[in-house]
Amino acid sequence: MVAPLKVGIAGLGTVGAEVVRLIEAQQSILSARCGRGIKVVAVTARNKSKKRGIDLRGIDWMKDPLAVATHPEVDCFVELMGGAGDPALSSISAALAAGKSVVTANKALVAKHGVKLATLAEKHGGALNYEAAVAGAVPVIKTIREGLSGTSINRVYGILNGTCNYILTRMEQEGLSFAECLKDAQRLGYAEAEPSFDVDGYDTAQKLAILASLAFGTKVNESAVSVEGISTIAAEDLRAAADLGYRIKLLGVAMRTKTGIEQRVHPTMVPLTSSIAQVMGVTNAVTIDGAGIAPITLVGPGAGGAATASAVLADVADVARNVRALPFAQPVAKLKTTTKAPMERHEGGYYIRLMARDLAGTAARIATRLAEQKISLESIVQKHPNGGLEPIDGTKKSSPVPVILITYATSEDAMRRALQAVQKDKVISGKPQVIRIEKN
Amino acid sequence: MVAPLKVGIAGLGTVGAEVVRLIEAQQSILSARCGRGIKVVAVTARNKSKKRGIDLRGIDWMKDPLAVATHPEVDCFVELMGGAGDPALSSISAALAAGKSVVTANKALVAKHGVKLATLAEKHGGALNYEAAVAGAVPVIKTIREGLSGTSINRVYGILNGTCNYILTRMEQEGLSFAECLKDAQRLGYAEAEPSFDVDGYDTAQKLAILASLAFGTKVNESAVSVEGISTIAAEDLRAAADLGYRIKLLGVAMRTKTGIEQRVHPTMVPLTSSIAQVMGVTNAVTIDGAGIAPITLVGPGAGGAATASAVLADVADVARNVRALPFAQPVAKLKTTTKAPMERHEGGYYIRLMARDLAGTAARIATRLAEQKISLESIVQKHPNGGLEPIDGTKKSSPVPVILITYATSEDAMRRALQAVQKDKVISGKPQVIRIEKN
Repeated sequence: MVAPLKVGIAGLGTVGAEVVRLIEAQQSILSARCGRGIKVVAVTARNKSKKRGIDLRGIDWMKDPLAVATHPEVDCFVELMGGAGDPALSSISAALAAGKSVVTANKALVAKHGVKLATLAEKHGGALNYEAAVAGAVPVIKTIREGLSGTSINRVYGILNGTCNYILTRMEQEGLSFAECLKDAQRLGYAEAEPSFDVDGYDTAQKLAILASLAFGTKVNESAVSVEGISTIAAEDLRAAADLGYRIKLLGVAMRTKTGIEQRVHPTMVPLTSSIAQVMGVTNAVTIDGAGIAPITLVGPGAGGAATASAVLADVADVARNVRALPFAQPVAKLKTTTKAPMERHEGGYYIRLMARDLAGTAARIATRLAEQKISLESIVQKHPNGGLEPIDGTKKSSPVPVILITYATSEDAMRRALQAVQKDKVISGKPQVIRIEKN
Repeated sequence: MVAPLKVGIAGLGTVGAEVVRLIEAQQSILSARCGRGIKVVAVTARNKSKKRGIDLRGIDWMKDPLAVATHPEVDCFVELMGGAGDPALSSISAALAAGKSVVTANKALVAKHGVKLATLAEKHGGALNYEAAVAGAVPVIKTIREGLSGTSINRVYGILNGTCNYILTRMEQEGLSFAECLKDAQRLGYAEAEPSFDVDGYDTAQKLAILASLAFGTKVNESAVSVEGISTIAAEDLRAAADLGYRIKLLGVAMRTKTGIEQRVHPTMVPLTSSIAQVMGVTNAVTIDGAGIAPITLVGPGAGGAATASAVLADVADVARNVRALPFAQPVAKLKTTTKAPMERHEGGYYIRLMARDLAGTAARIATRLAEQKISLESIVQKHPNGGLEPIDGTKKSSPVPVILITYATSEDAMRRALQAVQKDKVISGKPQVIRIEKN
């Protein structure tokens, strides 16, 4: 009989308490699956006296995270405090330096210090597992790190932030504005009082940087991601998208291009028929395009105590049965450095919404300006006063009318030059709304 | 430097040839990921002289699969011949008995002899990996076997047969009959000349039995699955489903019930809003319901040379880096025996399509017969001659008119008794069409 894996946990919020509860409740199945028991031997949290509904008798209560990480009995240190700096960083580093394995749900830490931590893990032989850091209970880390070892990945993209997807879903379904939905999301606890980290795309960028590293063998680097959030999206964009066979999602996209790995987070038009377009509310999803095979999509709960605890426990179980992959799939020494790909070089289709001043003249002018940049149009429609869409018919209108263009693939640079020319022509009022299209 | 993993392959069809090609093409990334190289040292196939577009120089060509399996240099035997009996069974058994690891894409073999093979693998220490046996490139085996170790699974269900999903998709999209679509699928190579194994649900049943074993810790047992195919589905069922907010899919469903594990394959109404409903054409999908968490759905290519080879290679990579889980997640000694759950005990909602002889009287009679069995109706609609659907209004019609009922959850037994009573009443003509509803 192999000795049980001894676990120390720092952080006993919703997730930590659920992990303690599940290890106890699922003891017999876990030991059957792992060939050994799993036992919590040490914990710490900010408030010792808080009621958590779990039995902590027989478990050492330590004064701080570092004491859990370096507890002589602990084989596997589970960090559930969050935060990109100390005490998470120092305690995880100490555990890895002592040859212990580490399980964390901390995306910010992995995004910022992943390479350093992986180096420590490699040197001292411990595991560094972080399934819960991206897409909650959906085993996307394991899928890319192990399950697709035989596949050369060309692109990985996904809905990685439940708050943004919840807001976009409600905006679309109820025709509400971004501000209204955000307020509601805050009231319901789906968005923070300080929402920028979510709605401006930074949370998605951290998760994307992790996925990109695994998929493309690059050093995880949050600053190599171009980031735009969803605050500029209007209800009319969501309506126009639906009319044209698209839906708007905040995607994180990492892909191989001729010039390197492009990593970007932005509101994106995805075909209504794609798997990713069906993902509504707080649900997360990741699509992986492998060379020569149809896309693989994983969908599921991206947050919440039980979902996160499920992923944490799967990581702990892998440590227990010695299922071990390198933190970023390859040795750190083999990981390549990435830099931010200039978005001007991005190639793809675009949705463009303009307010046309004088329709008859404008349509010709816009078409000319786009043609000058060798941009072809998939469709050009004008928003009719009754709310429907119809092809431009050349009829002169007196007040500004929305015109919506869908371009075929072009470079972002060409698209921007064309729009600058259109603005200089003074045939439109205000700033054009531009949303990138991602085809499946 | 660890010595490379030496691989022997039996079967060099589309998949086998692609595996050989990929091992060569991805040598450097594979060795970075696995910490050692992967090298094909021995192969066999029925026809040595066939052109395969791969370089077999330096690889031993063996006279039969057994010779590959017992080749003294082979560490990992890859079986890609198919077939539930010999030579697949004998050669895999020999490899496992010799302490080698085995990778196979052979669902029939795993479904029929999985327990025996797992016993051998456990006894002699080799791995038994079969990711490609279910849902092709979608890493569903790994997800359940390892990725959800921390989750108590209540239900697993999926679209596991691309042929059936292709036929149902075309029937729905083009309003064609089953027979027409089957013929087309055969012409296009999506269905076999002898289609029964696919369209009657047996292929799905084998895959479901494997998933059930992993999810519920049962001995894989194909004969414990209740099986119905799609040949009775009519284009009008697909139309009515869409009108009522459902789509018809051939699902394999395994779930925990009060009386044990229920395993069944049948045409199923799934809500149009579910992830699984969006899966069209030859694509496969599996949804896993874990206790306390929202469903996780995996979608992707279920067949094809490249997709299958991708899964096979991931399994080989796991052997190379010594990522090792038990074949059925738990030791064979812990696996429970399952028997076929009687479908009369099944509980769920039902779609029922009847041809009503005399509408006014019939509606009342049907309602009474259902009420006698304590069955409540979610909706009852009559097919209007113009093709639309409208609520029954009591108007008397002269010729048989289709009536469609959607029931709330009830037992299959009660539903059958109610329909028998309706048939005895002679108010309907022909046999009722019954399709089970699976809620997400």
